[in-house]
Amino acid sequence: MEQSTLDLDLAADTIRTIRFLSADAVEAAASGHPGTPMEAATIGYLLYRRHLRHNPANPGWWGRDRFVLSCGHASMLLYSLLHLCGYDLSLEKIRNFRQLGSGTPGHPEFPQVPGCETTTGPLGQGASVAVGMAMGGRLLAENLDEHLFDGHIYALCSDGDLMEGVTSEAASLAGHLSLGNLTCIYLDNHITIEGPSSLSFSEEVATRYLAYGWRVIRVEGDNVLEVDEALSRSRLSLRPTLIIARTHIAMGAPGKQDSASAHGAPLGAEELRRAKLLSGWDPEASFQIPGSVQEHMAQVAEHGAFEERLWSQCFSEFKDCATELQLQMLEMMAGELPPGWEAQLPVFCPSEGPMATRKASGRVLEALAPRLPLLVGGSADLAPSNNTELVGERYFVAGRSGRNIHFGVREHAMGAILNGLAHMPGILPFGGTFLVFSDYMRPPMRLAALMGLAPVYVFTHDSIALGEDGPTHQPVEQLAALRAVPNLVVIRPCDANELSEAWRVAIERRNGPTALVLSRQELPILARSCLGAARDLERGAYVLAPEQGELQLILIATGSDVHLALEARVELQRRAVGVRVVSLPCWEIFDAQGADYSEAVLPGCCKARVAIEAASPMGWERYVGLEGRIISMKGFGASAPAKDLLMHFGFSVDRIVHEALDLLRRA
Amino acid sequence: MEQSTLDLDLAADTIRTIRFLSADAVEAAASGHPGTPMEAATIGYLLYRRHLRHNPANPGWWGRDRFVLSCGHASMLLYSLLHLCGYDLSLEKIRNFRQLGSGTPGHPEFPQVPGCETTTGPLGQGASVAVGMAMGGRLLAENLDEHLFDGHIYALCSDGDLMEGVTSEAASLAGHLSLGNLTCIYLDNHITIEGPSSLSFSEEVATRYLAYGWRVIRVEGDNVLEVDEALSRSRLSLRPTLIIARTHIAMGAPGKQDSASAHGAPLGAEELRRAKLLSGWDPEASFQIPGSVQEHMAQVAEHGAFEERLWSQCFSEFKDCATELQLQMLEMMAGELPPGWEAQLPVFCPSEGPMATRKASGRVLEALAPRLPLLVGGSADLAPSNNTELVGERYFVAGRSGRNIHFGVREHAMGAILNGLAHMPGILPFGGTFLVFSDYMRPPMRLAALMGLAPVYVFTHDSIALGEDGPTHQPVEQLAALRAVPNLVVIRPCDANELSEAWRVAIERRNGPTALVLSRQELPILARSCLGAARDLERGAYVLAPEQGELQLILIATGSDVHLALEARVELQRRAVGVRVVSLPCWEIFDAQGADYSEAVLPGCCKARVAIEAASPMGWERYVGLEGRIISMKGFGASAPAKDLLMHFGFSVDRIVHEALDLLRRA
Repeated sequence: MEQSTLDLDLAADTIRTIRFLSADAVEAAASGHPGTPMEAATIGYLLYRRHLRHNPANPGWWGRDRFVLSCGHASMLLYSLLHLCGYDLSLEKIRNFRQLGSGTPGHPEFPQVPGCETTTGPLGQGASVAVGMAMGGRLLAENLDEHLFDGHIYALCSDGDLMEGVTSEAASLAGHLSLGNLTCIYLDNHITIEGPSSLSFSEEVATRYLAYGWRVIRVEGDNVLEVDEALSRSRLSLRPTLIIARTHIAMGAPGKQDSASAHGAPLGAEELRRAKLLSGWDPEASFQIPGSVQEHMAQVAEHGAFEERLWSQCFSEFKDCATELQLQMLEMMAGELPPGWEAQLPVFCPSEGPMATRKASGRVLEALAPRLPLLVGGSADLAPSNNTELVGERYFVAGRSGRNIHFGVREHAMGAILNGLAHMPGILPFGGTFLVFSDYMRPPMRLAALMGLAPVYVFTHDSIALGEDGPTHQPVEQLAALRAVPNLVVIRPCDANELSEAWRVAIERRNGPTALVLSRQELPILARSCLGAARDLERGAYVLAPEQGELQLILIATGSDVHLALEARVELQRRAVGVRVVSLPCWEIFDAQGADYSEAVLPGCCKARVAIEAASPMGWERYVGLEGRIISMKGFGASAPAKDLLMHFGFSVDRIVHEALDLLRRA
Repeated sequence: MEQSTLDLDLAADTIRTIRFLSADAVEAAASGHPGTPMEAATIGYLLYRRHLRHNPANPGWWGRDRFVLSCGHASMLLYSLLHLCGYDLSLEKIRNFRQLGSGTPGHPEFPQVPGCETTTGPLGQGASVAVGMAMGGRLLAENLDEHLFDGHIYALCSDGDLMEGVTSEAASLAGHLSLGNLTCIYLDNHITIEGPSSLSFSEEVATRYLAYGWRVIRVEGDNVLEVDEALSRSRLSLRPTLIIARTHIAMGAPGKQDSASAHGAPLGAEELRRAKLLSGWDPEASFQIPGSVQEHMAQVAEHGAFEERLWSQCFSEFKDCATELQLQMLEMMAGELPPGWEAQLPVFCPSEGPMATRKASGRVLEALAPRLPLLVGGSADLAPSNNTELVGERYFVAGRSGRNIHFGVREHAMGAILNGLAHMPGILPFGGTFLVFSDYMRPPMRLAALMGLAPVYVFTHDSIALGEDGPTHQPVEQLAALRAVPNLVVIRPCDANELSEAWRVAIERRNGPTALVLSRQELPILARSCLGAARDLERGAYVLAPEQGELQLILIATGSDVHLALEARVELQRRAVGVRVVSLPCWEIFDAQGADYSEAVLPGCCKARVAIEAASPMGWERYVGLEGRIISMKGFGASAPAKDLLMHFGFSVDRIVHEALDLLRRA
């Protein structure tokens, strides 16, 4: 929303207002980070007042630019700006900064804070999410309309963001893809928590970003004209832009400016008083907003509403001429899945088997891609193994977007970029790697779960049965570690048809991420005539094979281990033991079904239970209690052919039968 | 071990031998990665034959150089070299590549493979571990003797290694610290698994490393003279060196050279036959080692033994003049802790409290540092919060090592560097960050557990009680996720004295890593006269407060939640309920105590059990069974003062009493 004239006096007053609103809120909370909001007030002001295209009355406007506060600890900068611009963030909320239910949490939270585009705080995440948003922006612009969806992505970053490896990964990819719609502003304040940033950080940031293929602009972060010009230039670029802004932490606080002590604690009443005095502010008053500043910033809302109206007219014209495919995209952007999309989900016939669930997943993607035009994804350089390619679709390259993404060997950035894509309307992102490497991308997965974003993770090579690659590649603790994440749904399907249903669950689930945990090895496709229906996966667990006669024992398994349980059941039935096999592909969904269904699947009266899962035993007591058995991995795997490993680590029908009989004998 | 003359014919034959040994082994295993060993054979040959100072008869020689195969999938390159040099790695083992117990696993494993310096495979880890080794080398050299401990660290890296963020973090720190004893050789083969590396990786690697402060040398990776000269030059540097070697995957395989298909699958019998033919090798024979090559490489062992003898003489002279401090260091390097070190562990008096366990941890480090001269560590830019500074000790800076390390905001690299430090004799490394950010460093923690290395992690801010920073900073699932890692010991002490004992356990534990999980908030220091002894932490769990009268209910808790349990016990005792409080700071140790001790602490007859932990409930059923209760976090936290959060999320005496009484009523 850049304008031609810049009133320097008004600018200065607004910048001061932002500084002291922020510092006052931290002071009132007796907790928080005053230094960065004070140092970045000039940049924030110029962005929100002159450069960002946004409409405070409608934070969800599709045509907007997006601002990501990667240094989330500077939350009060964002809250001050949102308040002044007229977002639904009252002064009362700012006065209650960091209090329970105040709407102004310590770090910005999406979607709780209107106008906050993504949750930040863990360093590096915002900077990387911004890359995903820029990619999503390109996808929408190229597939719909270049003018309607030309929103620019701005990210504000600290030294910490630039030190984090995830930012390096994402920046390298952003340069590779020439994301001209992305601007990162780096607050080069020479300060970290432990002291001067030179204690640990002496690299040439500009040179590094040039190496990535970015354009680099240097400015004095408090020079209104320089910053303003840099922001203008950054919008017109074929490459992503890094603005290196030399800033001063706690700018304007006479005793704390340029000191690490201003990072994570209130300035203190006396220091704040002195700072206000020095700035010509009333030293005794708090939360001051001069009338002139209020008026000046109120124009943002006016201008934003005007811009959205113009945009809506163009959008309306665009819709009238939209193609069938574009209309489908718009439908997805409005939050609807195209009707009948599920009909595309493949049903696998036992005669097609055996088939690895990773292979079946490739088939599902192939079937769904045409019907879900904003299904977008790829792999961290393991596409041939993860089967994540959308066959026949273009790859995302520099200068031309595409639905297939080569993330490179950058799992962590992939996780964050998926979040950025998921933030863009309608986009349904997925990303693949080996299950063991989910460890590389836990921070963004956690944020997806916290924000209620719904990327789908395709984690293949799900157990020691991947074989020869050995313990570095064999997941053991990853299933438990993922199941422990709140609001992350983890599904380990036992065959191609459960896999197909798992994709249904993942795609229908729009308020949290889903991890699909898939086999490298081939698995039989179960003939379901005498067995429970794969569709029951949607309840998390179900009776796959009922007991014959009286129920004496329950075998519970997931994924590939279900087939062992079925074989063991045959063996045990032969010995006249009434055995039920329960397939439990998803703990989170099953646990949410309520007591009646739980009792129907796992009757309380039957305490003889054996769980089988080629992974850490952690948590399985939830289903087998203290009296049951857990056949699991007690340590790490080994390098050998899969069949040797399974035998070596006790994943055999004999072992299950032995444990079951022993359990029954002792009961 | 560089020599003056280079016999180019012998070199060529040896390089061919390495290539075909590797390709034959992969072919025999019908699994593996032939491409990289073939492309890097020249570099491997020159390193092992002419540059690496090593003695195959004593892989543990302190004076050696170290070679890290960061691209661990090229394991057969390492095994071929180790075999030819005369390490304890027979041809038989190579014939059994990737078989159970063969000693030649799919990816190199430390310490199973003699001569393998560290376990690699997950990309980026080796390159970063090498930085830790180089730091450890500097520490030993400067504190003991510059000549005896001037070993050089070489790491061989692939595109994947260079794309991973952890490598960026570690390389930035290596440049910052001017680690001249480090050389990374980058195999610039233009190929990734998904195809040409240009699909996802187009940055200027050389420029990026120059920005980090490295020296960069470019060579043709198959040009013996160029590579040889570069390796010579790289040893003489005040900065770390990156050798960018243009190489060709599957060099010498006519149909697969420069193709992604040569990465992760055998060449195939016919292709291998053609490759051998082209190289003048017998196309029908496998595992060929010409006599001349055998002889040529046998000199490595001779030369290495000679060098070690010389070194030992110097070492012996050095020892005779060593200072008291140096002798203590040598003792630690020999695997002994200085006698009486435990006497330094502080005992905290209740009157000193309340005290946060993170604060107490700082006190323990202060007390131990003088007695454990190779205790070395720091924080990922949170030292003032993690209390990880060794007071009075120097910081590690460019040109001068120190026991305090500013890792910068680089948790992932910190984890890997701790592994590198732990690989160096005697060094006892620790690293701190917030518990929630353990998510950033799981891959190296897993490798530490897998290798049996023993770094100590200082994870502070261990629950929602960290307060206002909110859910992005509040761990919930991290405890469960860490407990799920095999061979990682996780300890959450309840007060300063349990903390002191936890450090004892961590330091005595030399075969696996330990995570200390510490409170931000102050906690009472328990008066132990009527309570169980803190020393019992070494059994993982213990009866902290016994029941009065008949045992009716057990309250089990960890860390800060123990204090709630103690208060609830008083309340319940008032209502004539016989309540025992069990402190369970460490699951792994408790689970290893055996049935008798388990029964003594948690008698099977008492099924009324309530667990209290302000974290994910995952796994607690192991101790409370299906009939117990778990007071835990069902979702993410929130931003508010700690006391409000604890009340909001149900961590109160009232809640515990309520759950306990309800449980007893229903029983």
